[in-house]
Amino acid sequence: MSRPPGRKQENHKISRELFVLTYGALVAQLCKDYEKDEDVNTFLDRMGYGIGVRLIDDFLARSAVKKCRSYSETADMIAQVAFKMYLGVTPSVSCNNTAGNEFSLILDKNPLVDFVEELPAERASLCYCNLLCGVIRGALEMVHLTAEVTFLQDRLKGDAVTEIGITFLRKAEDRKHKR
Amino acid sequence: MSRPPGRKQENHKISRELFVLTYGALVAQLCKDYEKDEDVNTFLDRMGYGIGVRLIDDFLARSAVKKCRSYSETADMIAQVAFKMYLGVTPSVSCNNTAGNEFSLILDKNPLVDFVEELPAERASLCYCNLLCGVIRGALEMVHLTAEVTFLQDRLKGDAVTEIGITFLRKAEDRKHKR
Repeated sequence: MSRPPGRKQENHKISRELFVLTYGALVAQLCKDYEKDEDVNTFLDRMGYGIGVRLIDDFLARSAVKKCRSYSETADMIAQVAFKMYLGVTPSVSCNNTAGNEFSLILDKNPLVDFVEELPAERASLCYCNLLCGVIRGALEMVHLTAEVTFLQDRLKGDAVTEIGITFLRKAEDRKHKR
Repeated sequence: MSRPPGRKQENHKISRELFVLTYGALVAQLCKDYEKDEDVNTFLDRMGYGIGVRLIDDFLARSAVKKCRSYSETADMIAQVAFKMYLGVTPSVSCNNTAGNEFSLILDKNPLVDFVEELPAERASLCYCNLLCGVIRGALEMVHLTAEVTFLQDRLKGDAVTEIGITFLRKAEDRKHKR
């Protein structure tokens, strides 16, 4: 990705409200386009993947982070640097298994749903923020990490918190095994 | 629009890159949905209108601006307060007629097109950022100002600058006359 000179000095921040409302318009459009929630979820994930693939360059350039030496460091980096930089929030991180490759990012407050009260009854299976999973998955893939990223809990669905699960897949076998 | 207590103290900023890429995904989706550029433009404008109608409350609450006493003041407010707040840029403003109801917002740089090189040949009539026109139109309507908002120049189409034209319509007759 080429970058015009001097770009790093510019103001990189915009108002969250405009983003949140625009994202809402995107989801609404996809709900018109696809009848099944699963299809909307898949599409949001795929769209997010494309965004993550492009966003990683920006992230590496602006964060100037060093290479992570473990999955745990990577998960912390996503939560403490990437979420902070792009969404202005810092989820807490927990490791969910002894193998050390399954993590949760836990958001007390999800900035993407500011204007959303609850999902409509006919859209109960919608993962409203599934774009985020795709973004994480796409960005990780560009630094040669294959991961499955899904929502495990969602406040929009009545859960106490919003929880994004990240499972790092070490090898091709792991991946097959998971599916 | 109800607002949870304490919301004003929160971080309202997010990264522009994520917004720009998400907006790009939205436009791409609409281009898949609608064959004609004009239909995409209309849809973006309508979608923006819905966003503006909701965003105005946020704007009035956060900017704490006073009531504008003239169209000229309103145009300045949009450029210097609203654009700055939501997109992190400040367009210059010019008045285009002696009646004092036609204005241009001129952007040397359009933050929404950071990752867009140029429009594809088959999408030459696309107003890529037409959502912005809708947002302005919707927000103005909520403060009882009827306006026509359109792109007059667009760097994506080879123009030297990006120029958004705002024509305030005083009465129902004005409106008819314009159409």
